[in-house]
Amino acid sequence: MTYIFSEGSIHMKKDDCIFCKIANGEIPSDTVYEDEHFRAILDLSPASKGHTLVLPKEHFDDALSADDKTVGEIFKTAAKIAVAVKETMNCDGINIVQNNGEAAGQTVHHLHVHIIPRYSSEKEKIVTWVQHESEPAEQKDIAARIAAKLS
Amino acid sequence: MTYIFSEGSIHMKKDDCIFCKIANGEIPSDTVYEDEHFRAILDLSPASKGHTLVLPKEHFDDALSADDKTVGEIFKTAAKIAVAVKETMNCDGINIVQNNGEAAGQTVHHLHVHIIPRYSSEKEKIVTWVQHESEPAEQKDIAARIAAKLS
Repeated sequence: MTYIFSEGSIHMKKDDCIFCKIANGEIPSDTVYEDEHFRAILDLSPASKGHTLVLPKEHFDDALSADDKTVGEIFKTAAKIAVAVKETMNCDGINIVQNNGEAAGQTVHHLHVHIIPRYSSEKEKIVTWVQHESEPAEQKDIAARIAAKLS
Repeated sequence: MTYIFSEGSIHMKKDDCIFCKIANGEIPSDTVYEDEHFRAILDLSPASKGHTLVLPKEHFDDALSADDKTVGEIFKTAAKIAVAVKETMNCDGINIVQNNGEAAGQTVHHLHVHIIPRYSSEKEKIVTWVQHESEPAEQKDIAARIAAKLS
């Protein structure tokens, strides 16, 4: 870990993390937005044209381990940027996606939010899933067990 | 639109919106969490077991049209619930997904955040996309045009 001092605040950077280096400007990127805490860049291997990533300058592995304030701010920043992406790309929709863990498709273990422009004309099936039937008794049991952890 | 008074605050509900009715308790659901502003429920047609939706009680079509505070709070709430979902379901990862517009797969036009448990053992390809090569000059042009809207 390295400590970064920036505009009166301090944050931690993980030395072997490529997104720490990009977020803090040590590796160049196609930046669309930057403030004290976040940098947004175009994805080098986009799902669609205009695919943007929002990265915190501080290192967090994912949204489940980040603090509450960072989570709120990164998604507020992502929604603001998504409006600009939609206007710029003239796309028909936007997915905001944040993956936690390899099983969820996370490949770089530094918190990031995907802003993915979607076009009505597109042929690929992306950011989608099959809807399964649910069994009422099992749903009630699952809901009660999740609720118990939140009460 | 109907105005709802709740614990000293007031919010708007769209009369023909099913998620307004569910969020405000007029239609029953498998609720895992509720506070003054949000209700989280199990998805009736889940992508995977434990698939949860977070709904604001106030009506917003999507995250691009919602106010900043609501966007920050709904995602903070989603991350907190995602931790409880992960512990309960003992899954290997979690996708946090929020779709804006039909082209992005949004089927109910009331802002909602999906919390999708992911299991290493699963066979289906979900919440995924193909990574395309990008062309450096085009990326620079797109980045400059998005950045211009945000400056």
